[in-house]
Amino acid sequence: MSLTITGLRGIPEIDRGADLGAVVVEAAAANGVPLTTDDVVVVTQKIVSKAEGAVVDVDPSDPLSHKPVVERESVRILRRRGELIISETRHGFVCANAGIDLSNMKRGQAALLPEDSDRSARRIRDRIRALTTAEVGVIVSDTFGRPWRRGLTDVALGCAGIGAILDLRGASDSLGRELHVTEVAVVDELAGAADLVCGKSEGVPVAVIRGVDHSWFRSSSVRAEIVRDPSEDLFR
Amino acid sequence: MSLTITGLRGIPEIDRGADLGAVVVEAAAANGVPLTTDDVVVVTQKIVSKAEGAVVDVDPSDPLSHKPVVERESVRILRRRGELIISETRHGFVCANAGIDLSNMKRGQAALLPEDSDRSARRIRDRIRALTTAEVGVIVSDTFGRPWRRGLTDVALGCAGIGAILDLRGASDSLGRELHVTEVAVVDELAGAADLVCGKSEGVPVAVIRGVDHSWFRSSSVRAEIVRDPSEDLFR
Repeated sequence: MSLTITGLRGIPEIDRGADLGAVVVEAAAANGVPLTTDDVVVVTQKIVSKAEGAVVDVDPSDPLSHKPVVERESVRILRRRGELIISETRHGFVCANAGIDLSNMKRGQAALLPEDSDRSARRIRDRIRALTTAEVGVIVSDTFGRPWRRGLTDVALGCAGIGAILDLRGASDSLGRELHVTEVAVVDELAGAADLVCGKSEGVPVAVIRGVDHSWFRSSSVRAEIVRDPSEDLFR
Repeated sequence: MSLTITGLRGIPEIDRGADLGAVVVEAAAANGVPLTTDDVVVVTQKIVSKAEGAVVDVDPSDPLSHKPVVERESVRILRRRGELIISETRHGFVCANAGIDLSNMKRGQAALLPEDSDRSARRIRDRIRALTTAEVGVIVSDTFGRPWRRGLTDVALGCAGIGAILDLRGASDSLGRELHVTEVAVVDELAGAADLVCGKSEGVPVAVIRGVDHSWFRSSSVRAEIVRDPSEDLFR
């Protein structure tokens, strides 16, 4: 099994109301990977938020002016240290500063997380299908920290058309023993893989992953499959 | 930028004392990706533990017989729920059951984490260089859960020849603003990407990732760069 991950260059600055499905279709063709059924398209959160207008004004002279927005976007504060707030957002994600950030934004603006990233992914997927007939998986990704390990990795905020979790419970391992629990968060591994080609400062906000097994494509959502209910979480 | 990830099929059952470097070199060639400088080789922990003899006997009739081993391999218990123990291992990892598991093991045996996975990666890297002259990066990966998000993902236990964290602090984003902190845990994203082709039950314990930027290759270790010191951790 072999996968190829291609970062799409040449995507223009995205404004509110942009047709992201059309942008992706055009960029994929221009980058030599015209979209086809069973491709996975990973779209970084920033351009989704920009297209959807999930942007707020902040005071560019005040480095803390986005903090009230962080509080407003949070339903539960888990930790504070200095200026850093780790909270549960109203979408159910646990991350720093409610996912709000200022990088790659115009001065005086900050991007919020999309209102419903699974819906954002579905809309992009539907638009791609309408334009090309290709049945692709779409993941909306963002960059989160994690406890216990330094460094950030990209994970999925939303998905459509690709299973969020691949459930190998009950499959046999190579020695014929029954595997009891191996639920792989493939959308997070796909989001992280895409980040390897998207980078943080090169203007490559979309990646196409080709070679994913057909059986992984199905109706799914990050909200339903990945977001852990606080009641079953040992660290909240 | 484009990456290709190839899972290596046909790797035989690994016994104690196996020459993993030679196994990887041979399997890469047999799978059509003979190793070359700037390839990244991701080796799953299980075969490293088997080759190093990091294996203990357990009572196959007692599903809890590995629990004393979990306690011995742990320096700090973070949470318990039912049979599940989340602990900090003596290597500094926070994971379930001290990383010990029974899948893909002979009945009556359990694999421990390698004694020093960075050293394991260095040995494999050195052996590959000796056999082929190729300067590759090597990652030893394992499958961990995480708080807040359901599902497991593969992360790096050890690395050699590839930077664990790519530090983009101070680089400019696409709008010319200074990025303040973007430390990407690329070894974890590479480990997760490899898991997409290795699967859990298909006997594909090694992947080759081709296309990684030359600048990412350097001396590094997971212990030094990824493992977060408890004093700077907000969730321990």
